[in-house]
Amino acid sequence: MSEDQARAGAGEGDTQPAIGATELAGCIDHTLLRPGATGVEIDRLCDEAKSYGFAAVCVNPVWVERAVSRLGQSKVVVASVVGFPLGASRPEIKLAEARRALDDGAREIDMVINIGRLIEGDIGFVADEIKQLTAAAHQVGAVIKVIIETVLLTDDQKRIACEVAAGAGADFVKTSTGFAGGGATVSDVALMLSVVGPTMGVKASGGIRTATDALNLLRAGATRLGTSAGPAIVTEFVNGVR
Amino acid sequence: MSEDQARAGAGEGDTQPAIGATELAGCIDHTLLRPGATGVEIDRLCDEAKSYGFAAVCVNPVWVERAVSRLGQSKVVVASVVGFPLGASRPEIKLAEARRALDDGAREIDMVINIGRLIEGDIGFVADEIKQLTAAAHQVGAVIKVIIETVLLTDDQKRIACEVAAGAGADFVKTSTGFAGGGATVSDVALMLSVVGPTMGVKASGGIRTATDALNLLRAGATRLGTSAGPAIVTEFVNGVR
Repeated sequence: MSEDQARAGAGEGDTQPAIGATELAGCIDHTLLRPGATGVEIDRLCDEAKSYGFAAVCVNPVWVERAVSRLGQSKVVVASVVGFPLGASRPEIKLAEARRALDDGAREIDMVINIGRLIEGDIGFVADEIKQLTAAAHQVGAVIKVIIETVLLTDDQKRIACEVAAGAGADFVKTSTGFAGGGATVSDVALMLSVVGPTMGVKASGGIRTATDALNLLRAGATRLGTSAGPAIVTEFVNGVR
Repeated sequence: MSEDQARAGAGEGDTQPAIGATELAGCIDHTLLRPGATGVEIDRLCDEAKSYGFAAVCVNPVWVERAVSRLGQSKVVVASVVGFPLGASRPEIKLAEARRALDDGAREIDMVINIGRLIEGDIGFVADEIKQLTAAAHQVGAVIKVIIETVLLTDDQKRIACEVAAGAGADFVKTSTGFAGGGATVSDVALMLSVVGPTMGVKASGGIRTATDALNLLRAGATRLGTSAGPAIVTEFVNGVR
């Protein structure tokens, strides 16, 4: 099947724009955050990301330098997580971690909000932290994604988190770390998009395993997908699985 | 049942020393590391720890100051986690996080080793990191525990991790974060004790839910137990459950 044929959402009566395989791959953050991941696995992740044309590799901070070096002049950028996955580090430490990752060459920062502070209503704390990290990222032209960990929040809390991230000038809101049980859902993506609007990105992550998962989330409004199953998803898609 | 009666390991033919309820409670790190934990829950954790006579409360860095303040002049100390739970932060960031927690009043640091580097055999990296954090803790008279995340390691890797922690002068080796699936087992505690010997502590953590779990791990050689079920465990024990 050619790439032109490999299109989703082009069925009769479907008003959504079609998605091609290149576009699908270009939405994927190829992700390896397992604590036991080794350098060889990080190298393979980078090589796959180049080969498939993924948007980024998403790695833990200790691997940023290696991934940057492995990707060389490729268009694939390195995303580093910060305060990950619990979000319960001190703001100063999250900021130092973000700056270090940026110094190491990361061009995207996926930070976890302080979930407990959001739940207890200390919105100022959550907002200040996001603002500081956003400023650090934007200072070097990097992108910042704000992980709100939907599975731990009520819909009202999800809305507040998205408003705060938008108000802080972040580039993306992101559903999940993948470490809290549960992951991206179509309804959460739609809710997040309804708050942040089309000028911000929405990254769906956690539990995305198949081309169907990926397409459903993109149709709901996700503009980026975080998954460790990128190669399988794109292969499935090219083979015609919707 | 009186505390004297509430003893374990005193059965006929049992050569292990008996454990009393006070001693059992004194081995427990009362733990609350859920990302959604709020300040009110941290306060309750501290109050329970005082009331039961636990060794410490174990909290995320953002809550250290609050826990220190809530515990006041109590004998219960505050343990903060560092690089938790993935262990894949940069060493400089782990060090900064530990120093900040110590400045905030933590008197115990539960750090996660760099698991990926251990698995790929970069022992020097793992050892240097532990040495730096141990020096920071010891400089202010604090205790450091080294989490090796047993569930991700082979027995040989567990042995190496324990040797490295011992060589770095750490105070405890600790089995698990509780976030990687799997937790403390009697066989892992015995293995860890066999490497580090009786002059170092062994903290069992992850999945400890009952008095039976707790006693089995103590009999295997654990000297500290990390659990969020401390009150239930001690109550069960006092009521005669072994």
